[in-house]
Amino acid sequence: MTSKAAGTRDSGAPARLAAVLRAAAPADGVLLSDLADIRWTTGFTGSNALVLVLDGRARLFTDARYQTQAAAEVSGAEVEILSGSLLPSVAEKWLGNVSRLAVQSDRMPMADAEALRARAPGVDLVPIAGLVSALRARKTTAEVQAIRAAQELTESVFAEILDVIREGVTEREVAAEITYRHLRAGASAMSFDPIVAFGSNAALPHGRPTSRRLRRGDPVLIDMGCFLNGYASDMTRMLSFGAPSEDFRTVHGVVRDALHAARDAARSGMAASDLDRVARDRIEAAGFGPQFGHSLGHGVGLEIHEAPSVSFRSDSPLPEHAVVTLEPGIYLPDRFGVRIEDIVHLLPDGCTRITELDTNLTIL
Amino acid sequence: MTSKAAGTRDSGAPARLAAVLRAAAPADGVLLSDLADIRWTTGFTGSNALVLVLDGRARLFTDARYQTQAAAEVSGAEVEILSGSLLPSVAEKWLGNVSRLAVQSDRMPMADAEALRARAPGVDLVPIAGLVSALRARKTTAEVQAIRAAQELTESVFAEILDVIREGVTEREVAAEITYRHLRAGASAMSFDPIVAFGSNAALPHGRPTSRRLRRGDPVLIDMGCFLNGYASDMTRMLSFGAPSEDFRTVHGVVRDALHAARDAARSGMAASDLDRVARDRIEAAGFGPQFGHSLGHGVGLEIHEAPSVSFRSDSPLPEHAVVTLEPGIYLPDRFGVRIEDIVHLLPDGCTRITELDTNLTIL
Repeated sequence: MTSKAAGTRDSGAPARLAAVLRAAAPADGVLLSDLADIRWTTGFTGSNALVLVLDGRARLFTDARYQTQAAAEVSGAEVEILSGSLLPSVAEKWLGNVSRLAVQSDRMPMADAEALRARAPGVDLVPIAGLVSALRARKTTAEVQAIRAAQELTESVFAEILDVIREGVTEREVAAEITYRHLRAGASAMSFDPIVAFGSNAALPHGRPTSRRLRRGDPVLIDMGCFLNGYASDMTRMLSFGAPSEDFRTVHGVVRDALHAARDAARSGMAASDLDRVARDRIEAAGFGPQFGHSLGHGVGLEIHEAPSVSFRSDSPLPEHAVVTLEPGIYLPDRFGVRIEDIVHLLPDGCTRITELDTNLTIL
Repeated sequence: MTSKAAGTRDSGAPARLAAVLRAAAPADGVLLSDLADIRWTTGFTGSNALVLVLDGRARLFTDARYQTQAAAEVSGAEVEILSGSLLPSVAEKWLGNVSRLAVQSDRMPMADAEALRARAPGVDLVPIAGLVSALRARKTTAEVQAIRAAQELTESVFAEILDVIREGVTEREVAAEITYRHLRAGASAMSFDPIVAFGSNAALPHGRPTSRRLRRGDPVLIDMGCFLNGYASDMTRMLSFGAPSEDFRTVHGVVRDALHAARDAARSGMAASDLDRVARDRIEAAGFGPQFGHSLGHGVGLEIHEAPSVSFRSDSPLPEHAVVTLEPGIYLPDRFGVRIEDIVHLLPDGCTRITELDTNLTIL
């Protein structure tokens, strides 16, 4: 599949649909139901669609709300407007001559599979979990640029919100400013709700902003990203409000060193677990192994979390042109936590940084 | 199921789990995989969990990130922390003695069903699509209050942002203000990205905010909602920037009349399609039937769109204590669109308004 995927890298929507069909062989046809995959293959950004690739023709099905939008956005597929639920209509009208239909078993509810089987009883469903995700993991030059543009916006917001980090401000208020400034600057949405955590709240890897007020001496964790032109950014940085404690400074140094080591080692072709290991070794050597409970990173693109996983659980080779986060962390319950996160673009001989901001501890 | 559901209305998490198990009979056990359903039954708000109800005991499975949070939030279920993917572990360790396991077939990917069958081959999977949604449709008094509080916040933001609607402001800027003011006021997130549409952009029922600038004479459509303490708000109102045209005033009057007629008619026990029909009759009588392409409304609660659907396609009776939107609309391509949306709480003899703001056309 990797070599087939290579053919899609710098080509547009029709080539992507063809690549999906090739990768799904020996199925006769492919039904795409995941909206991010549908966007990637056809350009359609609406919230209700199916794509059927069959006999060398691709059709995108949606409802009347999206008639104008689909006509403007879709390339490489004919648009069919249906009323009512899409799946039963497609099964009844379009699947008569299919014997083996590839379906996205990791994204399609079992009830939909049952509906397909009931309405097109002659069709054998071939599961293709992860197939389109694997193709999407190899980013085109334009996609890398789009992620870079989203990341630039996030970094400019980071610089702006330093003014907001003042004594007595709440985590929620800082999070609201982060969202506001991204949207004002043209982001279509946040790629996830910003994480803003002061002091011991930063010890929760996925804490939600609270009404806790900033006090002098607090460590501050900010993890944020947006969508710009469909593509996501993602960055975590640490600040110290006032002079950092010796412990905070030490732990920050360990995490920073782990990130830099991972950045230096990252290249396509290496096993995901080997890259995770590079960062984990540094953290374990400093005695904080048990306090780094999550994996090193994840792919970023049309979704904030996508393939490949950069995890100790995955021995898969990292694809060429994958764009991934590297985000080691150390969490000390009831005290504080440190995570630093960059995005990189993987190449056979190393990686290019997408994140431009340095990894220093910012002291306010 | 309706009579069983009645028993759950004013009781807490353990009673809800018991109600799910009763409704799922004759299955021996129930596996919940939908996060909103898991929140509703146990109180858990994390992003990774499964709930298994078996032999009168409920267990919630999650990962180490949520250990502290699960201990604080979950009631009615024992918490088990697992490493790695939850589903295979649960299948291998906990399903040995189950013969018929109810699963959420409308929310569970077919790949997960295959994984369950592979790891627990003796288990027969019983699909319970929509079962928990149907129980959730009947809101408790506390839930109605939570939706009302979210709606009050949204209405206060609506009053505030009137100051922002000025000549030359862009749709995106107004949307950013809407989001910012909700988050500052304590909303945890928006329940959907706000829709702000000027002039002909309002003719797209689900348009996204653009960089279009407001000009005197533009109709303005604002559709927005937030999450507060887990529950959603949702409201659409129309404004006119400058004196409205005769046509705009007429269409606004028709939509407003349709909404008021639906509000007057709405009660639990009536068929959803009959309520939709009340509003649709008014719009058809005015000659705009084909320009009202979507259904009248939807349930609101832990999710922005949930059961029941208030659609011409559903003949199901509307449940007592359902909280639903009523949102008739008329869309005139390339000219303008009008939608007005309220939330109501359904009772056997009528409905109580959750939205307090009047439905007048606001002229700025």
